[in-house]
Amino acid sequence: MSNDNISPRSGHLYLVGVGPGDPELMTYKAVRILSEARIWAVPTAKENGMSSAQQIAGQMVPDNGRTILSLCFPMKKVFLGQETDDQLLAAWRRSADEVIRHLDRGEDVAFPTLGDATLYSTAFYLLAMIQEQRPQIPVTVVPGITAMAACAASQSSPLALGDDVLAVVPAAFEDDRLRGILANLDAVVLMKVHRRIDALIDLLEELGLIDCAVLTERSGMPEERVYTDVREARGRKLHYFSTMVIRKKKVQVSNGTHAHAL
Amino acid sequence: MSNDNISPRSGHLYLVGVGPGDPELMTYKAVRILSEARIWAVPTAKENGMSSAQQIAGQMVPDNGRTILSLCFPMKKVFLGQETDDQLLAAWRRSADEVIRHLDRGEDVAFPTLGDATLYSTAFYLLAMIQEQRPQIPVTVVPGITAMAACAASQSSPLALGDDVLAVVPAAFEDDRLRGILANLDAVVLMKVHRRIDALIDLLEELGLIDCAVLTERSGMPEERVYTDVREARGRKLHYFSTMVIRKKKVQVSNGTHAHAL
Repeated sequence: MSNDNISPRSGHLYLVGVGPGDPELMTYKAVRILSEARIWAVPTAKENGMSSAQQIAGQMVPDNGRTILSLCFPMKKVFLGQETDDQLLAAWRRSADEVIRHLDRGEDVAFPTLGDATLYSTAFYLLAMIQEQRPQIPVTVVPGITAMAACAASQSSPLALGDDVLAVVPAAFEDDRLRGILANLDAVVLMKVHRRIDALIDLLEELGLIDCAVLTERSGMPEERVYTDVREARGRKLHYFSTMVIRKKKVQVSNGTHAHAL
Repeated sequence: MSNDNISPRSGHLYLVGVGPGDPELMTYKAVRILSEARIWAVPTAKENGMSSAQQIAGQMVPDNGRTILSLCFPMKKVFLGQETDDQLLAAWRRSADEVIRHLDRGEDVAFPTLGDATLYSTAFYLLAMIQEQRPQIPVTVVPGITAMAACAASQSSPLALGDDVLAVVPAAFEDDRLRGILANLDAVVLMKVHRRIDALIDLLEELGLIDCAVLTERSGMPEERVYTDVREARGRKLHYFSTMVIRKKKVQVSNGTHAHAL
């Protein structure tokens, strides 16, 4: 097969979701791809920091002498449809250049990313930067288990059932918009609530939803903590990996007076 | 440890997400639990039918002489917060009784379920029915890869990024509510669109969103088909496993005139 747009020597880029923390929640596909790749590009918030994704993947994939490219991404909010912060763009561009150097030599690069690669992953900023310079590189994205699914599962509870409409809200929310979402949708996941927990508890109380909420800190990790009464989280300094799940409706499995709801 | 509420001989119930179709998208935890369980309870739409979840799991977990309990659930819509269809309740109750018979004998039962156990899985109706009679049975829920994540991944595209709010809408939607969700949220996943595809295409055209939509039929299965122009699906008889992803906003990786968006 000839394709003039792809250099025959270009390496393959893999964006690999490694799940929320428990290494056993990695997929066979993620472990296979990470085992085969001789180069891992890993996101870190600080220079030479160890990424959470790398720690999780490293428990399932023994070190085979692979090369680790430590890519430093500052933790900054990205607002889609607006101009992106220049410092962030510069960091992504440096990282993209480093990955491209390896791809151009025909070396495959795998980028392990926390949770699901398709949900709020920095992997896609890196990919967009790489594609700007190498539009035709071969890419494979491997989905992963989300933190929200792990939170619900650890409570033996669904995220959504039946005709529930589910909303997933990332950290960067405005109060009015959040109020509308909480009022109108049936099930809401709020990610990275650590900075806003007190204001959020006030809002849930105002909307009469406080008893529908469960908060999980570091889901699936050894230090996991679950707040089934989210009021107990007021005033606390929560970890960055804090997810709140709010479910309004229940399924009725008995009609009549002795209904049992889930 | 003594616990008077749990019979010392009660079996353990496992609700296990097996992912969207590709057996390699099963997690290690799902495969381990399904390998260890001597009894699988599998949902089928017809008497003695083979379930999709069982087919997927069977490719990763060799038959070790396990017992298959084939549970027949009619495919009916469930509206939460309303009385549940009596025929459905009767089917769930029969299934629950069958599973309870085994749990009461101290036998573990695993229920493989398509996609993610925490999202729209019949597993939770069964669980609610079982808990009505056996409130204290030990339960473990194993999350799985969702069809929507697999759809986005196969397009090397995110489901949501940055400050995107994502809505997940199951099959059972009313037009006015759907219109509001499409107008107000940034990324929308519509599951099981097979019955409504023509009306949905009309609505997306009216809202100017037709070019933001991608439709995937049987994601991750050998017969997968992707419509990057969803208009081509008009008038077609789509498979039951049809998922549409609509994303309005793009990330800007360059500021200024030569922006590259993802």
